[in-house]
Amino acid sequence: MTNVMAPGRVPIAILISGRGTNMAALVRAAASGTLNADIRLVLSNKADAAGLEFADAAGIRTLVLSHRDFATREDYDRALVAHLREAGVQYVALAGFMRILTHEFLGPFAGRVINIHPAILPSFPGTHAQKQALDYGVKVSGCTVHFVDEGTDTGIIIAQQTVPVLDGDDEDSLSARILAQENELYPQALNDVLCGRISVVGRRTIRKS
Amino acid sequence: MTNVMAPGRVPIAILISGRGTNMAALVRAAASGTLNADIRLVLSNKADAAGLEFADAAGIRTLVLSHRDFATREDYDRALVAHLREAGVQYVALAGFMRILTHEFLGPFAGRVINIHPAILPSFPGTHAQKQALDYGVKVSGCTVHFVDEGTDTGIIIAQQTVPVLDGDDEDSLSARILAQENELYPQALNDVLCGRISVVGRRTIRKS
Repeated sequence: MTNVMAPGRVPIAILISGRGTNMAALVRAAASGTLNADIRLVLSNKADAAGLEFADAAGIRTLVLSHRDFATREDYDRALVAHLREAGVQYVALAGFMRILTHEFLGPFAGRVINIHPAILPSFPGTHAQKQALDYGVKVSGCTVHFVDEGTDTGIIIAQQTVPVLDGDDEDSLSARILAQENELYPQALNDVLCGRISVVGRRTIRKS
Repeated sequence: MTNVMAPGRVPIAILISGRGTNMAALVRAAASGTLNADIRLVLSNKADAAGLEFADAAGIRTLVLSHRDFATREDYDRALVAHLREAGVQYVALAGFMRILTHEFLGPFAGRVINIHPAILPSFPGTHAQKQALDYGVKVSGCTVHFVDEGTDTGIIIAQQTVPVLDGDDEDSLSARILAQENELYPQALNDVLCGRISVVGRRTIRKS
């Protein structure tokens, strides 16, 4: 798998903390041409993130920037910004990046940081969204692609996709069903952003066709 | 339209405050035999509720019990219970009944009061759920049938159905799309309850087939 570079592609970075299955979905979409991105960098805050190997094998530059090497969140975020700027990154896609981002990062990249969350926000923000959904007893869950703001999963929504919650579901089976939808929705929604098709009115996004 | 009575039907009341389109959907489902209910009473807290005429025309007993005639919520709820008991009601379906119910009502009818809400709970509880959804900018909304507890739309969920939120939607167009789903979902979900097909484990409901 190679990261095809073409003129007009938007330079992005993908931030991960673990296996990065959504990162892999974005890499595949870029390679196949359905995501208009030049993936300049896959960055992890954890050295043992399994997704780093995938990115490396796909010929994408990888970088580990451990939060443990920085005294404060703000220090970490300033270093993050420096690395992303050095790589010429314009947009940032979070893919299981388990860090709260501060204004030091979200200021410079305002409106250009996108995340995917495994629930139909505003229900079940934060960690263990699938377990939260099961414990609450909803009959429908899904995933949400949204712009990142300084709240926890409170940013403006770009796209959502639902899945049923089945009577026999446990956290693993529900998570797998949602993840399959995430892997489809994230490249599509991110591509809409990168192609300039998403405009924002209040908190609502409008998709230009 | 007649309210067909058959042996084995569960005696219920429907509580309304306005036009009662979901009440009408339940009345139609009972008449057609898809809702295993004997609708003994349609009760409104407002004398001018348009739904009263529909119920009357369908041959169902109607009653106005104005909250203005009672000093406290508890007094009102005790009167409500007295009327429902006198009518032999076992289950109560709320259909746009704009009153917060107290323990005086929910104690005697514990686990036997059902409501429908125009959002995918736990998102957007309370009034103006459709406007809340539009203002938040979700891409999916819908409706939820749930058991009623003493919180505001916090009860255990029986069924949910989604609808898309479209870019051009206003409160009216989204409300109409959700209402069409409500009118389908409510009779089905209530029938599952009345037929004893719904069991509760924690906060999750399981549907026996």
